[in-house]
Amino acid sequence: MQKIQFQCDYNEGCAPEIIQRLVETNLEQNIGYGEDPHCEHARELIRKACDTPEADVHFLVGGTQANATIISSILRPYQGAIAATTGHIAVHETGAIEHSGHKVLTLPAINGKITAQQIGQCLFEHYHEDGPEHTVQPGMVYISYPTEYGTLYSKQELTDIHNVCQEHEIPLFIDGARMGYGLASKESDITLPELAKLADVFYIGGTKQGTLFGEAVVITNPALKKDFRYYIKQGGGMLAKGRLLGIQYEELMQNNLYLTLARHADEQAERIREALTQKGYEMAVPSPTNQQFFILPNCHLKKLEEKFVVSVWGHADTDHTIVRFCTSWATKKDNVDKLIEEIKKL
Amino acid sequence: MQKIQFQCDYNEGCAPEIIQRLVETNLEQNIGYGEDPHCEHARELIRKACDTPEADVHFLVGGTQANATIISSILRPYQGAIAATTGHIAVHETGAIEHSGHKVLTLPAINGKITAQQIGQCLFEHYHEDGPEHTVQPGMVYISYPTEYGTLYSKQELTDIHNVCQEHEIPLFIDGARMGYGLASKESDITLPELAKLADVFYIGGTKQGTLFGEAVVITNPALKKDFRYYIKQGGGMLAKGRLLGIQYEELMQNNLYLTLARHADEQAERIREALTQKGYEMAVPSPTNQQFFILPNCHLKKLEEKFVVSVWGHADTDHTIVRFCTSWATKKDNVDKLIEEIKKL
Amino acid sequence: MQKIQFQCDYNEGCAPEIIQRLVETNLEQNIGYGEDPHCEHARELIRKACDTPEADVHFLVGGTQANATIISSILRPYQGAIAATTGHIAVHETGAIEHSGHKVLTLPAINGKITAQQIGQCLFEHYHEDGPEHTVQPGMVYISYPTEYGTLYSKQELTDIHNVCQEHEIPLFIDGARMGYGLASKESDITLPELAKLADVFYIGGTKQGTLFGEAVVITNPALKKDFRYYIKQGGGMLAKGRLLGIQYEELMQNNLYLTLARHADEQAERIREALTQKGYEMAVPSPTNQQFFILPNCHLKKLEEKFVVSVWGHADTDHTIVRFCTSWATKKDNVDKLIEEIKKL
Amino acid sequence: MQKIQFQCDYNEGCAPEIIQRLVETNLEQNIGYGEDPHCEHARELIRKACDTPEADVHFLVGGTQANATIISSILRPYQGAIAATTGHIAVHETGAIEHSGHKVLTLPAINGKITAQQIGQCLFEHYHEDGPEHTVQPGMVYISYPTEYGTLYSKQELTDIHNVCQEHEIPLFIDGARMGYGLASKESDITLPELAKLADVFYIGGTKQGTLFGEAVVITNPALKKDFRYYIKQGGGMLAKGRLLGIQYEELMQNNLYLTLARHADEQAERIREALTQKGYEMAVPSPTNQQFFILPNCHLKKLEEKFVVSVWGHADTDHTIVRFCTSWATKKDNVDKLIEEIKKL
Repeated sequence: MQKIQFQCDYNEGCAPEIIQRLVETNLEQNIGYGEDPHCEHARELIRKACDTPEADVHFLVGGTQANATIISSILRPYQGAIAATTGHIAVHETGAIEHSGHKVLTLPAINGKITAQQIGQCLFEHYHEDGPEHTVQPGMVYISYPTEYGTLYSKQELTDIHNVCQEHEIPLFIDGARMGYGLASKESDITLPELAKLADVFYIGGTKQGTLFGEAVVITNPALKKDFRYYIKQGGGMLAKGRLLGIQYEELMQNNLYLTLARHADEQAERIREALTQKGYEMAVPSPTNQQFFILPNCHLKKLEEKFVVSVWGHADTDHTIVRFCTSWATKKDNVDKLIEEIKKL
Repeated sequence: MQKIQFQCDYNEGCAPEIIQRLVETNLEQNIGYGEDPHCEHARELIRKACDTPEADVHFLVGGTQANATIISSILRPYQGAIAATTGHIAVHETGAIEHSGHKVLTLPAINGKITAQQIGQCLFEHYHEDGPEHTVQPGMVYISYPTEYGTLYSKQELTDIHNVCQEHEIPLFIDGARMGYGLASKESDITLPELAKLADVFYIGGTKQGTLFGEAVVITNPALKKDFRYYIKQGGGMLAKGRLLGIQYEELMQNNLYLTLARHADEQAERIREALTQKGYEMAVPSPTNQQFFILPNCHLKKLEEKFVVSVWGHADTDHTIVRFCTSWATKKDNVDKLIEEIKKL
Repeated sequence: MQKIQFQCDYNEGCAPEIIQRLVETNLEQNIGYGEDPHCEHARELIRKACDTPEADVHFLVGGTQANATIISSILRPYQGAIAATTGHIAVHETGAIEHSGHKVLTLPAINGKITAQQIGQCLFEHYHEDGPEHTVQPGMVYISYPTEYGTLYSKQELTDIHNVCQEHEIPLFIDGARMGYGLASKESDITLPELAKLADVFYIGGTKQGTLFGEAVVITNPALKKDFRYYIKQGGGMLAKGRLLGIQYEELMQNNLYLTLARHADEQAERIREALTQKGYEMAVPSPTNQQFFILPNCHLKKLEEKFVVSVWGHADTDHTIVRFCTSWATKKDNVDKLIEEIKKL
Repeated sequence: MQKIQFQCDYNEGCAPEIIQRLVETNLEQNIGYGEDPHCEHARELIRKACDTPEADVHFLVGGTQANATIISSILRPYQGAIAATTGHIAVHETGAIEHSGHKVLTLPAINGKITAQQIGQCLFEHYHEDGPEHTVQPGMVYISYPTEYGTLYSKQELTDIHNVCQEHEIPLFIDGARMGYGLASKESDITLPELAKLADVFYIGGTKQGTLFGEAVVITNPALKKDFRYYIKQGGGMLAKGRLLGIQYEELMQNNLYLTLARHADEQAERIREALTQKGYEMAVPSPTNQQFFILPNCHLKKLEEKFVVSVWGHADTDHTIVRFCTSWATKKDNVDKLIEEIKKL
């Protein structure tokens, strides 16, 4: 019997509405490279959802590609991107940012988050060095919403980060690979249009949120729009059949599908969190989104792993493991029931 | 009424068998990043089709990405890739190869092809320079099968190129974005296993040959296998839902689907070629595959463009245009009928 | 007996005035990295000589480094530099430009020169492509004064190139590794201030013109000045003891030393040219500067090589070689006498 | 009156013997690019001093250039260099390593040093990750001898680091910008030949140790020798008048000049250390070489700065500053006397 998988949010294909639409449009003839009517329509829907009528919208295939392409388009060769030590670009992209020539300037993170104060300090120190040209110049800020640990910045925290960026005239880029799971969270106090106003560029993740693949990059800062398609093409991100991205985002952005799918995942995660908390396990990170991090005795983990696949996130001590439970748009309520049942038995 | 499109081979989605299979497997749970059973099975089918039981097989999303990743994995920083002046990496990838630090060392091409003799000469000259370290060292050879102009290398020509590469200990990489259209051509005198023996690395293109997207990279030279997944990830090419590539290639490589789809495209191209030839138009390039290049009077082109979309490839003189007619696995016989009818009327 | 060397213009150390000054200042204490009073003074002298009171002046160690640093500071990642096929950056720098991520977009050259018309055509074609983002965008023009073949652009030719760059809003960069030999030539119709007005950035070469090493980069276009020291440092070009560059350029730019040294080299080259012409040898390139290219029968070359070192530039046919005779600021009149004597005997 | 400078070890020109020799050889004719007899002779002297008869020796102009060139020659694109968080490549080179595409993988340092145990742990963790290809692979180790803080690895510590590198088959690179100051230190327990056996590649710094400029790279590991001159040229480090490096190293490596100059600097540093210690100031780092780091009350620093230039290295608290006093081969005993006198008065 195949184990039930809770180890990540990209175990399944895509939302049924989306694959259905891909089937229906399969033999349509469309021009390539994202210039077809589906892409145009999807862009329009995204601009509307973000309340950014002037934004440029581009579709890329995956997150690492989106991050590297965006960062490459912003920075000059001697500049780096400020990020949390735990940021995706700092640890999980095989040095894709460095491969494009840029240092990731890491700041210590608490539960995956960095603060406006830290960013301000980092910029202050650079420009008050004796010979700043001997060190990498901070050229932008990269954060994720939610973070790698599922945590959320509050509207105030984002506003503060936005302000410190404005003050130093560097752009703020928000990685939204799991943005829906953040926006749909009960603990989120920000809307997509509000977030769009605070970022210079961000993306609305599809891969982990209901599409087969795809990240919709939204550029609100006019200074960052120029020639972006060149960057996409050069970075290998210009899908020949760009329609595939347009069609998927058309569906995702209609009928509130994006947030509906996300809310489902967050609710299932909440159920798991409650079950684990009631059982007395310690939370490793207080995440209000689809990823839950708990500290489990190794023997309990072993037991769980007989029927479920989860992620090992680290080792708390020799007898305890930090475990990630991950839900998604596709998580079956039924499977969560089974997991909870098993947790109760531990 | 929408015009019928003959301008490229990626106007439609994918072969019905393939999308059907994507629907069936949509809610399966699979691990990510190409390590799922579908990918494993597809790799096995490809190894069998190539008669290369020891080869490594990796799936990438698109051609520019595949080219940049493979070339990046082969060359040292001071080396360049020998290619035709008309090669895809030399002209149509926004400098993706240069972006990864490498010069494309171009050789003049005839109908998109370069020769073993030219390659040998280029290598000879480099090593007989006074101070070879002042110029880029040729570190590999890049060719396409078929070429950008739809033409084919004969088995002898490929063997000669293979031999000159062996002699100078540099790898031969064959870009097979349209490989099926080459292998299925009446004028091809080589099989996939034969080609696999002559190349150190190549790929079997999916995007233009029946899948939604995807290129299957086959590495036969053991020296080129090491750590290839790092390159894929760093280059932004590691699809989270790698299963999508596995599932598509499983279908493509079964029941001879790959060559069947390709043969259809070649046959339709042949019909168009005959119609144009009979009408007395001059062939710009003698292509035996799915791309046909003809010189048309501008007024005739304009007439055709009322009902069809074709590609303008260049200007023969002030009154004549070089036009590309492109068929694919998806080209409807019926639409070719209509095109031929219209050609006859010109 | 050591042979007399005419193969290049960097066989000796530096002008006696310069080494003398290095000795005198050897134990002075100075701050590093080009921020000392000698560098400041040298900058002032250069601004005066160029009649560009607002220009930024930076000192780099060598030509390849200067070219790569300047080009890297101008281009965005998807842009390339237009250059002659024979340009130094296109052939003699081991792909340093590509290493920094940029394609060199070559135009066929006549005697090392390209034209405004060619540049305009190249830019026109790029922007009139269907999908310009699939190819590298021309982002600047690189030429040398004099060219690799010792030839000179006229003031009109430079003005035309300047104008086409202005029209397309791309900068013009003039590599002046041998600039003095050009300006001092009898056939030059341009002055340093005039040249400075036509270029956005250029450098006044020292290495080949009387210093131990060093190239003085002059940035006249304000848009190119920002953070240039970061580029120098990152590119490994920020000399710890920057004073060495300052002191050398202080001497070079005083008392008309730069042009005096250059004129000497040009005059000696002229004497060699006359001797060869009188003897009936064919000029390969009509160079009015310190490099002379002649076609010699192989047996005559062999004879000359018994006493002199010259450069073999290519093979005219099986019996004839293209030979470069190179003079410099250091060439002894006496040695030229000996060479001419030997030529007469051939 | 000019202040006396103790802020760094590159305030003056070069050792009198060296500039004298540059004067004597100034008008010699030599071939370029490091292939002249002076370079050959200097290489021979270095091989002898290191007891590495088979080593390749190359001369580069500066430290950042040497580091970037060497690291670029060792790593594959997906690999990074392990280094101390305080390592020169990690902080003071404007991201030159990242510019060449590689991440610097930093380990927390104690007084500038990292341990074999830390390195082993870092490698262990990488290869025991789930999906190592999602992170940068450690491909080499970079340390400095002495470190940025003037501290020294013991022979045992270097041997341990050497062993852990051997075990994991990655090279050890020792940055020796100040190597002489380390070897000449009373606390050093290692000789140049011993160090040469433990490193795969290292350099013997000239810039900070008596030459005008120059770093002599010694490659002992045969696997790292191939085509190194291509890297130098591509990186802009191939000096046209390479003789300048050869001549300087000929002098430096003769008559024990290298260590004699270094010992002088260390002795003067020791005198300063004693004066500061006797006065009761706290040492910030226990350095036995030419750099001394002490914590001074701000008011005392201000007083000292009336007559001397020193380096501010950081702020201990609001009232205290970390100050670097730096001596060199050129430091006059007399000036140290004056400094000590002033310290006593504080």
